[in-house]
Amino acid sequence: MPVVVTDIARPDPAAVAALERHGVATVHEAQGRLGLMAASLRPIFRPVSIAGPAITCEVPPGDNWAIHVAVEQCQAGDVLVVSPTSPCEDGYFGDLLATSLQARGVKGLIINAGVRDIAALTEMRFPVWSEAVYARGCIRETPGNVNVQVMCAGAVVNPGDVIVADDDGVCVVPLAKAAEVAAKADARAASEELRRVRFQNGELGLDIYDMRQKLAEKGMVYIRQKDV
Amino acid sequence: MPVVVTDIARPDPAAVAALERHGVATVHEAQGRLGLMAASLRPIFRPVSIAGPAITCEVPPGDNWAIHVAVEQCQAGDVLVVSPTSPCEDGYFGDLLATSLQARGVKGLIINAGVRDIAALTEMRFPVWSEAVYARGCIRETPGNVNVQVMCAGAVVNPGDVIVADDDGVCVVPLAKAAEVAAKADARAASEELRRVRFQNGELGLDIYDMRQKLAEKGMVYIRQKDV
Amino acid sequence: MPVVVTDIARPDPAAVAALERHGVATVHEAQGRLGLMAASLRPIFRPVSIAGPAITCEVPPGDNWAIHVAVEQCQAGDVLVVSPTSPCEDGYFGDLLATSLQARGVKGLIINAGVRDIAALTEMRFPVWSEAVYARGCIRETPGNVNVQVMCAGAVVNPGDVIVADDDGVCVVPLAKAAEVAAKADARAASEELRRVRFQNGELGLDIYDMRQKLAEKGMVYIRQKDV
Amino acid sequence: MPVVVTDIARPDPAAVAALERHGVATVHEAQGRLGLMAASLRPIFRPVSIAGPAITCEVPPGDNWAIHVAVEQCQAGDVLVVSPTSPCEDGYFGDLLATSLQARGVKGLIINAGVRDIAALTEMRFPVWSEAVYARGCIRETPGNVNVQVMCAGAVVNPGDVIVADDDGVCVVPLAKAAEVAAKADARAASEELRRVRFQNGELGLDIYDMRQKLAEKGMVYIRQKDV
Amino acid sequence: MPVVVTDIARPDPAAVAALERHGVATVHEAQGRLGLMAASLRPIFRPVSIAGPAITCEVPPGDNWAIHVAVEQCQAGDVLVVSPTSPCEDGYFGDLLATSLQARGVKGLIINAGVRDIAALTEMRFPVWSEAVYARGCIRETPGNVNVQVMCAGAVVNPGDVIVADDDGVCVVPLAKAAEVAAKADARAASEELRRVRFQNGELGLDIYDMRQKLAEKGMVYIRQKDV
Amino acid sequence: MPVVVTDIARPDPAAVAALERHGVATVHEAQGRLGLMAASLRPIFRPVSIAGPAITCEVPPGDNWAIHVAVEQCQAGDVLVVSPTSPCEDGYFGDLLATSLQARGVKGLIINAGVRDIAALTEMRFPVWSEAVYARGCIRETPGNVNVQVMCAGAVVNPGDVIVADDDGVCVVPLAKAAEVAAKADARAASEELRRVRFQNGELGLDIYDMRQKLAEKGMVYIRQKDV
Repeated sequence: MPVVVTDIARPDPAAVAALERHGVATVHEAQGRLGLMAASLRPIFRPVSIAGPAITCEVPPGDNWAIHVAVEQCQAGDVLVVSPTSPCEDGYFGDLLATSLQARGVKGLIINAGVRDIAALTEMRFPVWSEAVYARGCIRETPGNVNVQVMCAGAVVNPGDVIVADDDGVCVVPLAKAAEVAAKADARAASEELRRVRFQNGELGLDIYDMRQKLAEKGMVYIRQKDV
Repeated sequence: MPVVVTDIARPDPAAVAALERHGVATVHEAQGRLGLMAASLRPIFRPVSIAGPAITCEVPPGDNWAIHVAVEQCQAGDVLVVSPTSPCEDGYFGDLLATSLQARGVKGLIINAGVRDIAALTEMRFPVWSEAVYARGCIRETPGNVNVQVMCAGAVVNPGDVIVADDDGVCVVPLAKAAEVAAKADARAASEELRRVRFQNGELGLDIYDMRQKLAEKGMVYIRQKDV
Repeated sequence: MPVVVTDIARPDPAAVAALERHGVATVHEAQGRLGLMAASLRPIFRPVSIAGPAITCEVPPGDNWAIHVAVEQCQAGDVLVVSPTSPCEDGYFGDLLATSLQARGVKGLIINAGVRDIAALTEMRFPVWSEAVYARGCIRETPGNVNVQVMCAGAVVNPGDVIVADDDGVCVVPLAKAAEVAAKADARAASEELRRVRFQNGELGLDIYDMRQKLAEKGMVYIRQKDV
Repeated sequence: MPVVVTDIARPDPAAVAALERHGVATVHEAQGRLGLMAASLRPIFRPVSIAGPAITCEVPPGDNWAIHVAVEQCQAGDVLVVSPTSPCEDGYFGDLLATSLQARGVKGLIINAGVRDIAALTEMRFPVWSEAVYARGCIRETPGNVNVQVMCAGAVVNPGDVIVADDDGVCVVPLAKAAEVAAKADARAASEELRRVRFQNGELGLDIYDMRQKLAEKGMVYIRQKDV
Repeated sequence: MPVVVTDIARPDPAAVAALERHGVATVHEAQGRLGLMAASLRPIFRPVSIAGPAITCEVPPGDNWAIHVAVEQCQAGDVLVVSPTSPCEDGYFGDLLATSLQARGVKGLIINAGVRDIAALTEMRFPVWSEAVYARGCIRETPGNVNVQVMCAGAVVNPGDVIVADDDGVCVVPLAKAAEVAAKADARAASEELRRVRFQNGELGLDIYDMRQKLAEKGMVYIRQKDV
Repeated sequence: MPVVVTDIARPDPAAVAALERHGVATVHEAQGRLGLMAASLRPIFRPVSIAGPAITCEVPPGDNWAIHVAVEQCQAGDVLVVSPTSPCEDGYFGDLLATSLQARGVKGLIINAGVRDIAALTEMRFPVWSEAVYARGCIRETPGNVNVQVMCAGAVVNPGDVIVADDDGVCVVPLAKAAEVAAKADARAASEELRRVRFQNGELGLDIYDMRQKLAEKGMVYIRQKDV
C-alpha cells in the first residue's frame, strides 16, 4: 500500500546553514565518517553546494509517478531525495519537475537514477546529483512511497535528515544529530583554517602533524637514490 | 569486402531543423521512446545541441582507416557516426580529422569508442559524443565500411537517419519518419510550454495531470508523521 | 620496511618543457605508443596541461600517511604520482595537501584513487587527475614508500620519469628517453602542422595520406545507394 | 572508539529454518520486496543455501583485524556479515578464518569485499558470498566494530537479523519480523506449488493469473505476421 | 499500443540443427562476424549449447507481464528472447515461467536483464543467458510487445531469427540467411577439423597458415635474449 | 619494428614447482605483496592451479597474429601471457591454438582480453585466465612482439618470470627472485599449517595472534547489547 507521510519534523535552520557552509568532506569527518553516498552520484554542474532537510521518495524502476506526489510535501529549503527500488538509469526528472520544485523554493535533487533536460536544469541553476544522464522518460502506472526511510546510493535517508551536497558528492546527517555535527564541523573547520595558513607558509605536514618520530618508530628509512 | 555506399538519400532539412530545435528528450518521447543510444555516450563539452543526417562508418578495433574514407561522403550539415565492430576505447578521432570535417561543414561526431585532442576539439567547438577519452591512436591496416547499417551504443543507425544529440545524449530518427516525428515533437513541445507556465505559477503536477483520483484508487494513503 | 628514496635524478628541463608543449596524444605517438595510463584517470577541471618529473608515492588502501612524507621530496616543477597497493577510491588528497604542494611549486597530482575538496582545488587551479571524486578521508596508520617504482593506472612509473598530463589523460616518459621523445614530438608536431593547413583547405586524408590506391588493393568498392 | 556488542538477541530457530527452506526469492517477496543486497554479491560455489542470525563486522579498507574479534562473538548457526567502510576488493578472508568459523559451527560469510583461498573454501564447503575474489591480503592495524549496524551491498544489517543466502543472492530479514516473514513465505510457497503443477500441465500464466481481460483493456492487439 | 505478432515464419529445422551443432564462435565467423550479443550475457550453467527460432519479447523496466503473453506464442524448439526497453537487472524470470516454457518444449531463454531461482533452473536444466542474477521480482502493470524487432545486448533480433547460444555467448542469424550461414559453418568446421589434426601433431600455425614470409615482410626480427 | 626475443632464460624448475604447490595467495604474501594481477582476470574452469615461466606476447587490439609467433617460443612447462596494447575483449584464443600449445606441453594461458571455445578448452582441461569470454575472433594483419616486457592486468611481466595462477587469480614472481620467494613461501606455508591445526581445535585468532592486549590499547570496548 503506497504511503505518503506528511508533516515531517525538520532540523534547526541554523544547523542546516552551518552544515551547508562546511560542505561534504568536513561534515563527513565531523560526523565520524558516516553517511556518505557512493562516488557514482555526480552533480550535473559545478561548482555547486547546498544543504537542506530531505523529503524522501521511493519509486519503482522506470516509473516517476511518486515524484509528483512528493513535490507537494516539499517546502522552501528542502532537498528532494529519490531512490528507485532496483537499479535504474531512466530519466526520472526533467525541466518541468524542476520548474515545479524551484517554484516552491526547493534547493535541489539527489537521485540514485537518471535525469534529463540537463541543459535546461543547468541554465535554471537547479542543482542535481544523479547516477546517470539519460533521456528515456518514465511511465506513471505504479505509485511509490513518500517520506519513508529509503536507501540511496549506499546510505540510509530518513525524512528530515539533512542532505549536504557539493562538488565532492552527497552526505546524510540524521535529523537528531544535525546540531551536534554542525558544531563539530565548526570546530574542525577552524582548526583546518589554522593549518591552512601554516601550509601556505611552506610548513610541512610532517611537522604540523608531528609525524617524524612516529614514522621512525614504524621503521621508515631514507636512502639516497645513488645508494640504492 | 569493404564497401562505401555513395549518394545516399537525406531527410528534409526542415524536419532536421525542427528535430534539432526540440532536442533529444522531446524527440525520443515524440518517437514513441525509440532510438535512444546508451547513457555511456557523453558529449566532450556542454552545452551542445545538433541534428543532421547520419553518415555511418563501421571500423575494426584500433583501426581508423575507414574514417578517412567516410569524410569524403560527408556534406555540410551531416553528422558522422562511427562504431567499432567490437568494444574499443582507442582514440579514433582527433583534431586533424575534426579540421577536415569542419572544413566540409559537418556538424559533429557520434562515436561508440574513444577520442583524443579534446582540448583542441573543445576550442574549435567541434561537438563530439564518445564512450571514452583516450590518447591511444589507431592504425590504418584494415578498411571498414561506410554508409552501411551500423549498431551504435545499442541503437541501429542507417545512413541518412537523423541524429539528434545534446547534453542528454543521442537519439536516432529513421529517415522515413523524420517529418512525422518532427511534427509530433512540435505538438509535444507546445503542450509542454503550456504546462511549464502552470508549474512556474506553483500549480502541482498532481493537479495539472489530474492524478489525485487515480492515486486514491491505487490505495495511496496520507499519514501524519506523528501518527505513524 | 617503508622506504623514502631521496636526491633523485631529474630530466633536462628543456625536454620537459617540450613534452608539456606537445601534450599527451603527440608524446604518446612520438614514444612509440607506450606509457599511457588508463582512460579511467580524468582531470578534475579542463582545459589543463602540465609536465614534470615524477615523485612517486605508494600508499596502502585508505591510508595517506606517505603523501605527507612525499611532499618533502617534491621540488618546484615536480608532479606527484600516488598509487594505492590495491584499488581504492577513498579521498586521499584535499585542499590542505594541495596548499602544501602549491607552496613548493609542484605542478599537479596524478592519483590512481579518489580525491576530495575539488571545488577548492579547482579554484586554486591545482591540477589533479584521479580515478574518483569521493569525500571519504584516509587514516594515517601505515607508512608507504616514496620514490620507488609504482604501477599507476596500468603504467610503470619510476621517480624522475616525465609525467605529461592534459585533457586527454596521462602519459609517462622514462627519464632516460625524455630528450629523445621530446625531439620526436617536435618533428611529429611540425609535420602535423603542415597537414592541418591542408585539412583546413579542404583536402582529404584520402589524398594527403595517399590512400586511394591501397584501399583499392584491399578490395574497397563504391556503390551508389540506389544500386545496392 | 571501536566497539564490540556482545550477548546479542537472536531470532527463533524455527523461523530461521523456515526462511532457509524457502530461499532468497520467496523470502524477498514475502517481506514486501525489502532487504535485498546488490546483485554484485555472488557465491563462490553453487548450489548453496543457508540462513542464520547475523554477526556484523565493520572493517576499514584493507584491514581485517576486526574479523578476528568478530569470530569470538559467533555461535553455531550464525552467519558472519563483513562490510568495509569504503569500497575495497582486498581478500579479507581465507581458509584459516574459515577453519576457525567452521570449528564454531558458523554457517557462512557475507562480505561486501574480496575473499581468497576459494579453492580451499570450496573443498571445505564453507559458503561465501563476496564482491570479488582477490588474493591481496589485509593488514591488522586498525580495529573495526562488531555487532553494530552496518550497510552491506545496499542493505542495512543489524546484529541478529536473519541472513538468507542462496544461488540468487542475499536477503536480510529484521530480527523482529523473522517469524512473520517466515509465515508469509510458507503461504507463498504453498500457493506457488499449486501453480507449478498447473504450469507443468501446460496451462498458461495468461489463464492461471486471469490476465486476458486486463490485457485487452490495456489495448493489447494480436496481429498475424502476414498482416503486419 | 501493445502488440503481439502471431503466426511468425520460422527457419528450416535442418539449418537450425546445423547451426546448433557448430556453436557460436563458428557461426559468428561463418556469418561474416555479425550478430554477436555483448560479452556481458552469460549462461547460468555450463556446458550448454542450443539453437532455435526467436520469439521476441520487449518489456518495460521491472515489469514482466509481457513474458506471460509471449509464452503462448512459443512452440517446441523455440528460444525466447526478452529485452527491457531500458537497462534493468530485475529478476524477470524464475522457475514457474521456466516450468511453463519447458512444458511447451522451449529450448531456452536469452534475457538482457536479470533472472532468479537459478538453482531450480539449473536442476531443471533449463538454459538461460542473462545480464545478472537478481532476486528482485517484477510487477505486472504495463504490457510490452511480442514478436516485434528488439535490440538485445547490442544485437538486432527479429522474430524467427535463429538464436545460437553456448558457453561462449549468443549469436543471431537472420531467418533469411539461416541456410546459407549453416552451409558456410559446415565448410568452416570441416577445414578447422583438418587443421586441428595438424595442430595435434605439433605443426605450428606459422606453417599451417604460411605466415613466415608475410611476417618477414612486415619487418619482424628474431633476436636472442643475450643479444638484446 | 616487431620483435621476437628467443632463447630466454628460465627459472629453476624446483622453484617453479614449489611456487605451484603453494598457490597465489601464499606466494603473493611471501613476495611482500607484489606482483598480483587485477581481480578481473578469472579462470574459465575451477579448481585449477599452475605455475611456469612466462612467454610474453604483446598484441594489437583485435589482432592475434603474434600469438602464432609466440607458440613457437613455448616449451613444455611454460605459461603463455598475452596482453593487448589497449583494452580489448575480443576472443584472441580458441581451441585450435590451445591444441597447438597443449601439443607442446604448455601449461596454460593468461590473457588480459577475451577467449572463446571455452567449452572445448574446459573439456581439454587447458587452463585459461581471461578478462572476458567473447566469441568475436581476431584478424591477422599487424604483428606484435614476443618475449618483450608487457603490462598485463596491472602487473609487469618479463619473459621467464614465474606465473603462478589458481582459483584466486594470477601472480608474477620475477625470474631472479623465484628461488627466494619459493623458500619464503615454504616457510610461510609451514607456519600456516601449524596455525590451521590450532584453528581446527577451536582456538581463536585473538589468542593465536596474541591480539587482546593490542586491541585494548587501541581502546576497543565490549558492551552487552542490553546495555547499549
